[in-house]
Amino acid sequence: MSMEESVKYVSIIGATGYVGAELVRGFAGHPNFRFRHLTSKTFAGKPYSEIYPVFRGVVDNICEELSPEEAAQDSDLVITALPHGVSSKAVPEILKTGARVIDHSGDFRYKDVATYEKSYNLTHPNPELLKTAVYGIPEFYRDELKDAKLVANPGCYPTCSLMALAPFLKAGLIDQDSIIIDAVSGVSGAGRKADLAYAFCEEDDSFKPYGAVGHRHTSEIAEQCSLLAGKDPGDIKVTFTPHLAPFKRGMLATIYVKPTKAFGEVTSEKINDIYKEFYKDETFVRVLPGKTLPDVKAVAGSNYIEVNGLFDPETGIIKLFSAQDNLGKGAALQAIQAANAMFGFPETAGLKNIVRGI
Amino acid sequence: MSMEESVKYVSIIGATGYVGAELVRGFAGHPNFRFRHLTSKTFAGKPYSEIYPVFRGVVDNICEELSPEEAAQDSDLVITALPHGVSSKAVPEILKTGARVIDHSGDFRYKDVATYEKSYNLTHPNPELLKTAVYGIPEFYRDELKDAKLVANPGCYPTCSLMALAPFLKAGLIDQDSIIIDAVSGVSGAGRKADLAYAFCEEDDSFKPYGAVGHRHTSEIAEQCSLLAGKDPGDIKVTFTPHLAPFKRGMLATIYVKPTKAFGEVTSEKINDIYKEFYKDETFVRVLPGKTLPDVKAVAGSNYIEVNGLFDPETGIIKLFSAQDNLGKGAALQAIQAANAMFGFPETAGLKNIVRGI
Amino acid sequence: MSMEESVKYVSIIGATGYVGAELVRGFAGHPNFRFRHLTSKTFAGKPYSEIYPVFRGVVDNICEELSPEEAAQDSDLVITALPHGVSSKAVPEILKTGARVIDHSGDFRYKDVATYEKSYNLTHPNPELLKTAVYGIPEFYRDELKDAKLVANPGCYPTCSLMALAPFLKAGLIDQDSIIIDAVSGVSGAGRKADLAYAFCEEDDSFKPYGAVGHRHTSEIAEQCSLLAGKDPGDIKVTFTPHLAPFKRGMLATIYVKPTKAFGEVTSEKINDIYKEFYKDETFVRVLPGKTLPDVKAVAGSNYIEVNGLFDPETGIIKLFSAQDNLGKGAALQAIQAANAMFGFPETAGLKNIVRGI
Amino acid sequence: MSMEESVKYVSIIGATGYVGAELVRGFAGHPNFRFRHLTSKTFAGKPYSEIYPVFRGVVDNICEELSPEEAAQDSDLVITALPHGVSSKAVPEILKTGARVIDHSGDFRYKDVATYEKSYNLTHPNPELLKTAVYGIPEFYRDELKDAKLVANPGCYPTCSLMALAPFLKAGLIDQDSIIIDAVSGVSGAGRKADLAYAFCEEDDSFKPYGAVGHRHTSEIAEQCSLLAGKDPGDIKVTFTPHLAPFKRGMLATIYVKPTKAFGEVTSEKINDIYKEFYKDETFVRVLPGKTLPDVKAVAGSNYIEVNGLFDPETGIIKLFSAQDNLGKGAALQAIQAANAMFGFPETAGLKNIVRGI
Repeated sequence: MSMEESVKYVSIIGATGYVGAELVRGFAGHPNFRFRHLTSKTFAGKPYSEIYPVFRGVVDNICEELSPEEAAQDSDLVITALPHGVSSKAVPEILKTGARVIDHSGDFRYKDVATYEKSYNLTHPNPELLKTAVYGIPEFYRDELKDAKLVANPGCYPTCSLMALAPFLKAGLIDQDSIIIDAVSGVSGAGRKADLAYAFCEEDDSFKPYGAVGHRHTSEIAEQCSLLAGKDPGDIKVTFTPHLAPFKRGMLATIYVKPTKAFGEVTSEKINDIYKEFYKDETFVRVLPGKTLPDVKAVAGSNYIEVNGLFDPETGIIKLFSAQDNLGKGAALQAIQAANAMFGFPETAGLKNIVRGI
Repeated sequence: MSMEESVKYVSIIGATGYVGAELVRGFAGHPNFRFRHLTSKTFAGKPYSEIYPVFRGVVDNICEELSPEEAAQDSDLVITALPHGVSSKAVPEILKTGARVIDHSGDFRYKDVATYEKSYNLTHPNPELLKTAVYGIPEFYRDELKDAKLVANPGCYPTCSLMALAPFLKAGLIDQDSIIIDAVSGVSGAGRKADLAYAFCEEDDSFKPYGAVGHRHTSEIAEQCSLLAGKDPGDIKVTFTPHLAPFKRGMLATIYVKPTKAFGEVTSEKINDIYKEFYKDETFVRVLPGKTLPDVKAVAGSNYIEVNGLFDPETGIIKLFSAQDNLGKGAALQAIQAANAMFGFPETAGLKNIVRGI
Repeated sequence: MSMEESVKYVSIIGATGYVGAELVRGFAGHPNFRFRHLTSKTFAGKPYSEIYPVFRGVVDNICEELSPEEAAQDSDLVITALPHGVSSKAVPEILKTGARVIDHSGDFRYKDVATYEKSYNLTHPNPELLKTAVYGIPEFYRDELKDAKLVANPGCYPTCSLMALAPFLKAGLIDQDSIIIDAVSGVSGAGRKADLAYAFCEEDDSFKPYGAVGHRHTSEIAEQCSLLAGKDPGDIKVTFTPHLAPFKRGMLATIYVKPTKAFGEVTSEKINDIYKEFYKDETFVRVLPGKTLPDVKAVAGSNYIEVNGLFDPETGIIKLFSAQDNLGKGAALQAIQAANAMFGFPETAGLKNIVRGI
Repeated sequence: MSMEESVKYVSIIGATGYVGAELVRGFAGHPNFRFRHLTSKTFAGKPYSEIYPVFRGVVDNICEELSPEEAAQDSDLVITALPHGVSSKAVPEILKTGARVIDHSGDFRYKDVATYEKSYNLTHPNPELLKTAVYGIPEFYRDELKDAKLVANPGCYPTCSLMALAPFLKAGLIDQDSIIIDAVSGVSGAGRKADLAYAFCEEDDSFKPYGAVGHRHTSEIAEQCSLLAGKDPGDIKVTFTPHLAPFKRGMLATIYVKPTKAFGEVTSEKINDIYKEFYKDETFVRVLPGKTLPDVKAVAGSNYIEVNGLFDPETGIIKLFSAQDNLGKGAALQAIQAANAMFGFPETAGLKNIVRGI
């Protein structure tokens, strides 16, 4: 691959939200991507580094007010960080230009359009795209990503939950009717906005459940669980409770499941072994040693996700744990990992050494 | 009751830990208690306010190196904040003096000595005291507290969990084999000590499970669940996972249970109504209105606990939620509530208006 | 004093901001005050505890939409937490009813109307009230508070700065042209509002100066310095730099001054002695022992303020330090202290035991 | 430069402290350096990623127990993160091997040995090395770094202070007797240790001055001020007050100085222009536009430093501001910048895109 071929041009639509900022951070140091357009209605004409001073001298590109398709014209890859209901209309326009798309909304994450429409209370204007859209977890859908025109970047809670559940679902080792996911997100998950609910004085020292019944990520997790288990979309239901914690970035899922008979004798060691085998070639999945459990601190600011599990012999429950950065592996950095897979770059390009340190 | 009768003298054994500090805060403003002795080996001879500068000019009493029984001689009430295994030996000595005792360790919380000995890996030197010790949740054992000589102050996780579960356990409305408790504590729960694991740079931005199988509070919760349900200790097992979150004070439990047939049709409204009825006379239990969910922020620094529940019709799971301060209702302030009950003071004395505000 | 005489009725105008919430917290546990009206335009008709859930079961009073004078009709004391420019018009209307007033804005803090008008870029509609308004630091103006109809509650930075400077200014021990005040406030100082600048994700891990030239508190501090030093308002100028730090409540001032010849030999011990003598009868001023320095942690959530000072023999500079809660001694709790002084209650009533603990 | 020449081997002595961890983070992604040895007495034999789980899969090198000279044998560069008094003995041994050294202690930062010995209360065993040691701020001593055998990495407070002061000191624009530095550091500055003083429950919500007279960095700042101003070491004295703030990483200095006559008319614009001119070729120094002031948030996690200044016409005081990461530009990342300069790599290599993002 010559140097010429090894550089692709990426545009980010809606670049000034928190997911946008993390995309910018990740691509800024990437050896194979260059920014073409960073679009923003609110901040058009301003340098990106004026909105996020952390990028002064690093990414001083001027925000542009361009339609998605205008931005797509001279881009190899367009990443949309738009609200659901907006993406579903913009993405087809982008695809017409020949540019490939990674979309961050919920609009293309479902195979079953009815589930989408119920969950989002919207009619999907382009349901045919759901068939070809690839659900962007490279560890599960790497092959499909290679030729994907449209990648639906998964939700943060779904990524965190599914990475923990997949090895057991795929092998039929857990009872499909028993899945309970208790998860915690940092405040950046709520996005960048002036909202008293997310003010420092309201969030600091706060910890609380929210959206405790019917959170949209519930149906997204459930559908992917079904698909990973080789079932029809909709076959599996999950219980899911998100919580908001007083840190900026990070996410942890604690998952309760029951083993099937196929599991045989259940031990914590066996759970760990199954993870090790399933993820043995995956750079970004850290299967923790022994009974070590994940910590948000270890993954915040990176594309890494940590998993491990324990068996509680008193009650027969298996506990699975996973931790990731909600903006990292849960959103923007996973999108970059997917972009690497799409364009044939090493999946770790630009990502391996991004860690927060202390 | 004359003024003379209305004042009782309290001593705190092991007064300089975080639970001790919260006892000191609570009693300092109490209309009916006066400090007799604050004991400490490490800080004997120093003013209490030198260890905790927040008390300068408020509680400048000198810490004394006294044995528990020495401290008890001229005290009406002795509160022990000692490690388990130490309390079990010290408490009988105190009781001999005629002083009444509230103990903060796990040593007197169990009715079944075998469960205690297994959970704490200790032989109990005075198991006969377990029969008469009262488990100090006033909302459940108010009558027994009146004449109690020895009160076992409950663990923080057990208080938080049991307050959420009790109305349903007592009425036989939930499946005893289905209880899953996912709980989160602030860092003060780990106590006051020089330990790198709880250093600011290690805890800030961290969120993680710990003691995920076999945490001692599991068996304490399970035994009380059994007793509340009218069963023998040991009949009910629970799945319990504690997590550590980056705030100083506060605790939240998210509990997953399945309704029994006795529940009839399950709705979130009905869950709320059951709470309202069960706690209708309780000042410190806030049954939140409608589908409002608890927040650690609302109770930290106080003796209040918030509860509510929701039904997930998709999976048939009931979610129960409770939030309290791990040092407040979860430890020291509940002990003061119990002390009020023991000595015939209004249970809210000195406690009602202690709230953190912003 | 009979029980009847010992209760006064207080109304709070603009009760739902952070200062209002702290007033509510302080008065809720006060033995001598009862709430008459809590007014709010935005939240009229709602229980106070719905806006601040921390007050559920503690202060469930309904917020009322009343004009200041309507609220004043049946109140002994009206506390206005209104914006500057609004207070200056509302306060005279309240005073007509005979109610006494403590105002939290900048509108009545100045003796020199020109300084006010320049600092606030407003024409004062009732400048004659500036003559009789008492600057509400009880430690300085206790006698005047007794009969005051109108008390101007000082700014948070001015209280913190002046408490540290007063002993030296009054005794002519520091060079009036050398005063440099470097101060830090918690985020609650910015008030309760939906503003991206104060969002959790923007403030956490942030530390920055703001309003670094011309902050309004500069002229307020300067005028009071002049008056404390026995000079005309405007005689003393001060250099003042506020900073915003990532905690909710608290304030620290580090002040640099040069000694005058009148000081004689300067030592840290002598500075400490001067503080001890000056504040020897003051419950809420903690002159720290030896070279111990103030910590925001020790005073947050209370009406206490800590002071101490050190001499740097290398450069001849005296460093003075003070720490308080910006909402406590810096605003609402100091207002309650002043209210106690106004109505002849012990100044510590309802305040002495309010401390945060851990 | 061929690929072979473009790789150098670095060893870190005392690699497991917080400065060590940041060195590891920085070098892990560096195109031109490879780790040779990471030494640690406490953790010898363990993978680095076991001590800092954030590095799992990134830096799994095994910690070795090697003497400094053993580690130096096959290294091009040795970075010592040892206590003062230990470095002064170890560094000469390393230099004998031919390896070049960057030392993080105070042992080689002074030109005047007497000042060092007074500040550190030690006798320097190798004072002759002070003559050739280069003070490692590349922006000031770039040329000297090229051939330096021994680089003394500056203290965090000195770097932050000197970067703000240098343009004015060098040009004689500020009164040498007026320098007052008020500075704030994150908790990581205290190092990695089990110490109750730095426990989460003690530091969260805390803000306080410390070492307020005689902090060792005072003399280091003063000597460098003297040298930058073209004076003899010891000619300039500074007033310096450090504070500890509740965030992990970051540092801000607010500096008060008086202009000399040479300054001419003083305006904020002119201050900004002087900064812009002085740092016009410096990638890592962000001279903020207009009256924008630095924020720790914008630089934490990076090698960038922000500076700006304002003139207060009321008092004639110039305020200078600078913000950096205490572990970044204030320690480890600046050392990597210096290493780049020493070995002829682009100074930005491996550093330019390291920013924290949200």
